[in-house]
Amino acid sequence: MHFTSEQRLDDGVLACEFTLGEIPGTLWTPGSAGSAGSAAPAPLILMAHNNGLPKSDARLAARARHSVARGYAVASIDAAGCGDRPRSAADEQARADLRRALQAGEPVDELFESLVGPLVDKAAPEWRTTLDALLSLPEIGGPVGYSGWTALGIRLAVTEPRIAAAGFFAGGFVPHAQREEARQVTVPLLLLLQWDDEGNPRQRALDLFDAFATKEKTLHANMGGHTGTPWFEGEDAGRFFDRHLK
Amino acid sequence: MHFTSEQRLDDGVLACEFTLGEIPGTLWTPGSAGSAGSAAPAPLILMAHNNGLPKSDARLAARARHSVARGYAVASIDAAGCGDRPRSAADEQARADLRRALQAGEPVDELFESLVGPLVDKAAPEWRTTLDALLSLPEIGGPVGYSGWTALGIRLAVTEPRIAAAGFFAGGFVPHAQREEARQVTVPLLLLLQWDDEGNPRQRALDLFDAFATKEKTLHANMGGHTGTPWFEGEDAGRFFDRHLK
Repeated sequence: MHFTSEQRLDDGVLACEFTLGEIPGTLWTPGSAGSAGSAAPAPLILMAHNNGLPKSDARLAARARHSVARGYAVASIDAAGCGDRPRSAADEQARADLRRALQAGEPVDELFESLVGPLVDKAAPEWRTTLDALLSLPEIGGPVGYSGWTALGIRLAVTEPRIAAAGFFAGGFVPHAQREEARQVTVPLLLLLQWDDEGNPRQRALDLFDAFATKEKTLHANMGGHTGTPWFEGEDAGRFFDRHLK
Repeated sequence: MHFTSEQRLDDGVLACEFTLGEIPGTLWTPGSAGSAGSAAPAPLILMAHNNGLPKSDARLAARARHSVARGYAVASIDAAGCGDRPRSAADEQARADLRRALQAGEPVDELFESLVGPLVDKAAPEWRTTLDALLSLPEIGGPVGYSGWTALGIRLAVTEPRIAAAGFFAGGFVPHAQREEARQVTVPLLLLLQWDDEGNPRQRALDLFDAFATKEKTLHANMGGHTGTPWFEGEDAGRFFDRHLK
């Protein structure tokens, strides 16, 4: 794990860019100036997003800084084929086909499956490699939470015993393999749903919520489309992680 | 409005019993000892429950004290036919029939409609009379929130402009009139749903949530049956009211 740059943000958060082999990542920490090493190790939140957004996206960075203010270290990577990582010509074509089909209101299940299924398969081991490296840092302790991309989170929750709680977003389109794996998920869950999310059929998200084996699972739904999540859900997610990671 | 007794509880909350004509009620306030009148008027939460429970039920009282600790005055009444108020022989019979049908897994829609429809019609004016009296007290200001029984809350939300926010519970069985009135509800809403509530069909609660005209409506769902609501939902409801009543 090589740290390539660090930046002190105006709220005091320390944003460190790193690489881990081919994987580029960002680690946000409280980074108390002058007292590095003296603070207790922070619990970690892995923050993932699949929607073509890079880890540097302003909304993701804002979420990360919000969690750091609550006492967490937060990490995000651009996994293979995600964010700013190179995409294969086939991936580019699949994304273009999917966008076109969504806009035209055509069936997208097969297109979605062929794009996102392999993305999850490639991303999961990179996130686990990143988790190994992060947990070896002195400023990061456990336990570990996961926040964001539902399909990847399901795969990690069933393969990675160090993940103690997960907050998922949307969940209307989840590859077949992860819809099945959901029945093995037992960690505490918060599923956040936008009621009129144009890209995530509501009933499928409700069915997914029903499928998780977790006993302590909570669904939050609000009005509006994919990007319309109200600000107070950030607070609620913070309290969810506080209950399980602190 | 006649206050008939007052009791200082061990958490400092003042619980005052009152009558208003035939209506028995309880008002919980911070009731700062020795400084009555000096504190700013508190926003008010009307706390209603239809499930045969009296206003003195321990769970209701605990919810009331929790809200008082957040800075609210809370009032509950036993409306006509509810709680400890006398029930007609027909009402007793309808409740017995409903219980039997529920246990036997038989259809309950008609029984439910014939019991709860009239209960709402009788309760709503009593709650409005109570609200008039409460708002004339110097220790109570506005705005006003509503918490609990969904069907009554819908009726009040569409007929009582002083109600500024409402937290509803369950909502699987709501009389036909209130399912229609739901389309006129525009105040901010929090609908709290138990995913496996044996007496409240889940899909109907989801349909009701969908029907409200409110733009700022939030659904929270948790696992388990009717009485299994997790403790943190009390905190979440408190924050919902804080956003809209403070």
